[in-house]
Amino acid sequence: MSLIKRDVPRPIRFTPGINPYAAGSVLAEFGNTKVHITATVQESVPPFLKGKCQGWVTAEYSMLPSSTHTRSDRERKGASGRTQEIQRLIGRALRSIVDLTKLGERSILIDCDVLVADGGTRTTSISGAYLALELAVRKLQREGLLKESPIKDSLAAISIGITKSDEVIADLNYEEDSSCGTDMNIVMTGSGKFVEVQGTAEGEPFSQEHLTALLDCARTALVVVQREQRMVLEKLS
Amino acid sequence: MSLIKRDVPRPIRFTPGINPYAAGSVLAEFGNTKVHITATVQESVPPFLKGKCQGWVTAEYSMLPSSTHTRSDRERKGASGRTQEIQRLIGRALRSIVDLTKLGERSILIDCDVLVADGGTRTTSISGAYLALELAVRKLQREGLLKESPIKDSLAAISIGITKSDEVIADLNYEEDSSCGTDMNIVMTGSGKFVEVQGTAEGEPFSQEHLTALLDCARTALVVVQREQRMVLEKLS
Amino acid sequence: MSLIKRDVPRPIRFTPGINPYAAGSVLAEFGNTKVHITATVQESVPPFLKGKCQGWVTAEYSMLPSSTHTRSDRERKGASGRTQEIQRLIGRALRSIVDLTKLGERSILIDCDVLVADGGTRTTSISGAYLALELAVRKLQREGLLKESPIKDSLAAISIGITKSDEVIADLNYEEDSSCGTDMNIVMTGSGKFVEVQGTAEGEPFSQEHLTALLDCARTALVVVQREQRMVLEKLS
Amino acid sequence: MSLIKRDVPRPIRFTPGINPYAAGSVLAEFGNTKVHITATVQESVPPFLKGKCQGWVTAEYSMLPSSTHTRSDRERKGASGRTQEIQRLIGRALRSIVDLTKLGERSILIDCDVLVADGGTRTTSISGAYLALELAVRKLQREGLLKESPIKDSLAAISIGITKSDEVIADLNYEEDSSCGTDMNIVMTGSGKFVEVQGTAEGEPFSQEHLTALLDCARTALVVVQREQRMVLEKLS
Amino acid sequence: MSLIKRDVPRPIRFTPGINPYAAGSVLAEFGNTKVHITATVQESVPPFLKGKCQGWVTAEYSMLPSSTHTRSDRERKGASGRTQEIQRLIGRALRSIVDLTKLGERSILIDCDVLVADGGTRTTSISGAYLALELAVRKLQREGLLKESPIKDSLAAISIGITKSDEVIADLNYEEDSSCGTDMNIVMTGSGKFVEVQGTAEGEPFSQEHLTALLDCARTALVVVQREQRMVLEKLS
Amino acid sequence: MSLIKRDVPRPIRFTPGINPYAAGSVLAEFGNTKVHITATVQESVPPFLKGKCQGWVTAEYSMLPSSTHTRSDRERKGASGRTQEIQRLIGRALRSIVDLTKLGERSILIDCDVLVADGGTRTTSISGAYLALELAVRKLQREGLLKESPIKDSLAAISIGITKSDEVIADLNYEEDSSCGTDMNIVMTGSGKFVEVQGTAEGEPFSQEHLTALLDCARTALVVVQREQRMVLEKLS
Repeated sequence: MSLIKRDVPRPIRFTPGINPYAAGSVLAEFGNTKVHITATVQESVPPFLKGKCQGWVTAEYSMLPSSTHTRSDRERKGASGRTQEIQRLIGRALRSIVDLTKLGERSILIDCDVLVADGGTRTTSISGAYLALELAVRKLQREGLLKESPIKDSLAAISIGITKSDEVIADLNYEEDSSCGTDMNIVMTGSGKFVEVQGTAEGEPFSQEHLTALLDCARTALVVVQREQRMVLEKLS
Repeated sequence: MSLIKRDVPRPIRFTPGINPYAAGSVLAEFGNTKVHITATVQESVPPFLKGKCQGWVTAEYSMLPSSTHTRSDRERKGASGRTQEIQRLIGRALRSIVDLTKLGERSILIDCDVLVADGGTRTTSISGAYLALELAVRKLQREGLLKESPIKDSLAAISIGITKSDEVIADLNYEEDSSCGTDMNIVMTGSGKFVEVQGTAEGEPFSQEHLTALLDCARTALVVVQREQRMVLEKLS
Repeated sequence: MSLIKRDVPRPIRFTPGINPYAAGSVLAEFGNTKVHITATVQESVPPFLKGKCQGWVTAEYSMLPSSTHTRSDRERKGASGRTQEIQRLIGRALRSIVDLTKLGERSILIDCDVLVADGGTRTTSISGAYLALELAVRKLQREGLLKESPIKDSLAAISIGITKSDEVIADLNYEEDSSCGTDMNIVMTGSGKFVEVQGTAEGEPFSQEHLTALLDCARTALVVVQREQRMVLEKLS
Repeated sequence: MSLIKRDVPRPIRFTPGINPYAAGSVLAEFGNTKVHITATVQESVPPFLKGKCQGWVTAEYSMLPSSTHTRSDRERKGASGRTQEIQRLIGRALRSIVDLTKLGERSILIDCDVLVADGGTRTTSISGAYLALELAVRKLQREGLLKESPIKDSLAAISIGITKSDEVIADLNYEEDSSCGTDMNIVMTGSGKFVEVQGTAEGEPFSQEHLTALLDCARTALVVVQREQRMVLEKLS
Repeated sequence: MSLIKRDVPRPIRFTPGINPYAAGSVLAEFGNTKVHITATVQESVPPFLKGKCQGWVTAEYSMLPSSTHTRSDRERKGASGRTQEIQRLIGRALRSIVDLTKLGERSILIDCDVLVADGGTRTTSISGAYLALELAVRKLQREGLLKESPIKDSLAAISIGITKSDEVIADLNYEEDSSCGTDMNIVMTGSGKFVEVQGTAEGEPFSQEHLTALLDCARTALVVVQREQRMVLEKLS
Repeated sequence: MSLIKRDVPRPIRFTPGINPYAAGSVLAEFGNTKVHITATVQESVPPFLKGKCQGWVTAEYSMLPSSTHTRSDRERKGASGRTQEIQRLIGRALRSIVDLTKLGERSILIDCDVLVADGGTRTTSISGAYLALELAVRKLQREGLLKESPIKDSLAAISIGITKSDEVIADLNYEEDSSCGTDMNIVMTGSGKFVEVQGTAEGEPFSQEHLTALLDCARTALVVVQREQRMVLEKLS
């Protein structure tokens, strides 16, 4: 008997073009979760890459104080551990699908600002960040600054969890996330390869059987996310 | 001959109800400028007001990094002087129209997060913050937590400037703001009284005649802002 | 019947030459308020002005912990919002009377350190800072580093307020400042033009009639301040 | 044909009792990597657990500046993102094997200070931290402060990677870690359940087949680690 | 032949009563060095002394940016090591002459703000701080808050150095201090006992013979400082 | 009758070669006190020495949180005053025995990390730091980077105190240090000259007679430390 109870993500909406100044921008929504994403092109690279004939992709992540159920404080005394962990994850995941040598000596900086947080803010951010990145690259191509796209594959992410009643469900909202014992985030390319597999037993450790179910469930849910991403890009081209 | 060249603000739009968790929320737009505003009710007051049988209203202000023409840094090492100056202004202005003793021992915290900055972000914030505050108070009344509204008057704000060719214009966008020698922000109540008058000669000092023209121009423009505010509130009641 | 009750500032004293190392220095006293002011010349400009053939004037403001009625903490974890707001104001006001292109690629940094605070510390600072600046410029001229003075006009500042009994008074001391509903700071040039007009209704919003009385009162009080400034400069030349 | 090339960890050594003041202490070595670990018992819990009749286990992680190949800076301006990510991981992993309600209202704080870093500092830390925790609990039992042990299972961790030539190896040293495209950390209980599965494609995304090989390799290597842990504990009892 | 060349300090002046709000205040001058000192009484003690029936004496030290030959930065990102070292020294020295159990559960906080720094700012601070403390205690006695003085002895400090030509001189100014190889600060009670002996060889280590000469020279110079302190206190009583 | 009760230090052990990456390393133990010391060579000098044809020697000092009787916090918000005071002392003392012009334009950075603190951590650090410095210099000589040693003399340090029963003892452990009224640290060269003399009366001020006994006691104890240092160096050469 299958452990998987729900492998379909919440309703997904990607709204491109929400910012007049950024090279690419998109509002990404998974259920109530809403993330404001922009891609800014900078004609420079971080110091450790100077003169190495390659570009860089990085990300910043932040939550509006009012985005959470109970208002949280602004991070004006430095980003929290959680924030830094998430923005390192987003940047790393995006770089895995980009041929940085084809980007030239420039950086693309992705800003993910969470307007409403109802679970899955990091996976919503990654799924939308891929689109903002794609839009920025297309703009660079239109302007003749890039001949060919440095993007090698598409990228999508989903959260999956094991409920108290031992069932596997995809795309957890805040309430489900709080009650799940094990929580996993999967980042996968369009061609079905893993970029990140991060599973954490908040309470009870989990078995190999559960791990297999979690990965299967993620795979199914990600097909839906990838379809939505393709539809947005097709409309724009 | 009149010095006033333009006393009509840019197109204004207030969209209430944009946040599911806050007591009041509104997206305030003046031209391209777009500010995401929420009002959060906290059943406590700052330490200096403990046991004084009164409430408090305060504000935080922040710009998304991508809100500006060229991306700006996140303020993770403390709010800048400009940010602190603006959020102190917003809080102070709101308190001038609230009878804090009627609010009870609770605080209302207004968050103004600028999504797109094209001039007038502080006046757009104040004009929208009044609406978010009004919505939060109505919610407190509906829930029976407040018997009568502590709000004594409405509140709106506008920027006015003197151009290089010595003409007075209202509601400056980013480009106009950058080229104006003198820049003034006026915060006024619905009954026509001043709450803040902040005029600064960035370059050339200005005469009494110009000051009179600036104040007249502001008064006319604020009538338009106040009409828009009333329309939003009427629809909701 | 006039609203103005007192348009004469408290006894004013400017003592130049209090620091052996600075290019210009003055102890500025308005009543009990005492500010230690120095002007330091630096043969460099901030990065954003490099190579633009112009100079810069800026200011820092600080209060000794023991300067206030009840001792306040040192600002060792960053300047407070109030401090930053005041030092931005002082710098901006001074720049409005200086032709920066005539200053050469150098900066003049004004330090205002409050020894005793009894109201009006920012206006005392500005009125004294003008003198310290003037002294520093004269030193540069004597040393042959400047051929002509870049200072276009003199500068003075005063605070004015509306008391609970609706009367307008100039140069508020700490007690008066605490009890005034509306508080205004006016910075004006020697030729009678406005540089800053900052009026704030701490409690009750104020009418147009009151605004007119506040401006008139300031103008009269500033004549006294300017006369004291001229006397100091005449003695020194 | 198997992808796994090396499933045996480097020589492991656990030296208990290295600190005279801590409740439990151990020097953990995997190859050249050397981590100084102590467990401190505090008779209090964090604010969010006050009065909830349960304890807490948390961890701090730090590297001596001289622990790395080229000396690194002390983290005196706040822990880096990497440091925070690792100490959150260690704390979370330890809590998964502890019944916090059986610990009483006290905290056990694990300090992991890396003396020499040659790859696998976080997995060495976790494997040693379990021992320090076990020693601290035994001390609490000997002192009569705990009747039964709150530890439900043992805990060990290992790193595994995919080399450039597509082979899977366990317990990477610094050089191997730098050259591996994919890097995975597995934390597992003595009973063979997963606590953390963190796999990251630094360069090339990895396939399902590789994921399976990584998990198999980790399982084999962890058997060795667990045997060393048991030997230390047996000697001490 | 004596190594001592100059055992008389520079001209000393103590001006009491310079601050209207502090319990005790004095401007202390040794040559050009000028320190603004206040003593503030706080009716509380630091947390570690709560309920121990004793008081506390502590100090803060700071230099105005313009006090030094070339302007120095404000310490707004935390006190420097030097600043902390000096303020710890001042507080410790003052506590050595106070019977803290006779002070009651209150603190006396000494603020030493250097207006002009020309060598010996820490010894000038200590010598003046003793006076400010004495004045604050007398005020507490006059107000009936203290029956008997908790001050057991007087306190004075002096700097001494060894010049390049191997001569010992007292009360070094900035130029002498910069050129001296060895620099010593001596804090001594009125009854001739040592409170602090801090000698540092900046360049060449020094012999026992030199140490003896340094101590003798300090003793002679301190007699002069103590006489000036007594004269100030006699005038005030 | 002599005031000196104990002039022999606790058992001393220096273990060189504890770090595989540093140019010199030593574990220094005085009784239970244990300090992990490394010397790192950097081929650069601080900005203020650029182009001055000389090198630099500096030190950092830190305590593991678990090194103290009751665990202390990590200094992640800046080094404390005590920490800065100690690391400035260590660096200064080392520089007094080094001819910096013979070191070339390079820096040697000494890290002193306290593993166990049972009194005398700063004197143990200095005594061990001299050895780590010596080892680093020998390595530079072996590698042909230095022709002759820039080290002019050896360096050792000891703490001495006056007990409540007025007796002078050397090399205080934590308990003795806490109960001593006066505490002195002496840093001396192998040729018997003083580098630092830092005596502090925590409680009762001390007499000239006591000062003489403290210095005599230190001198005797330092002979033992210097002998241990020589033995380590002889074995290595």
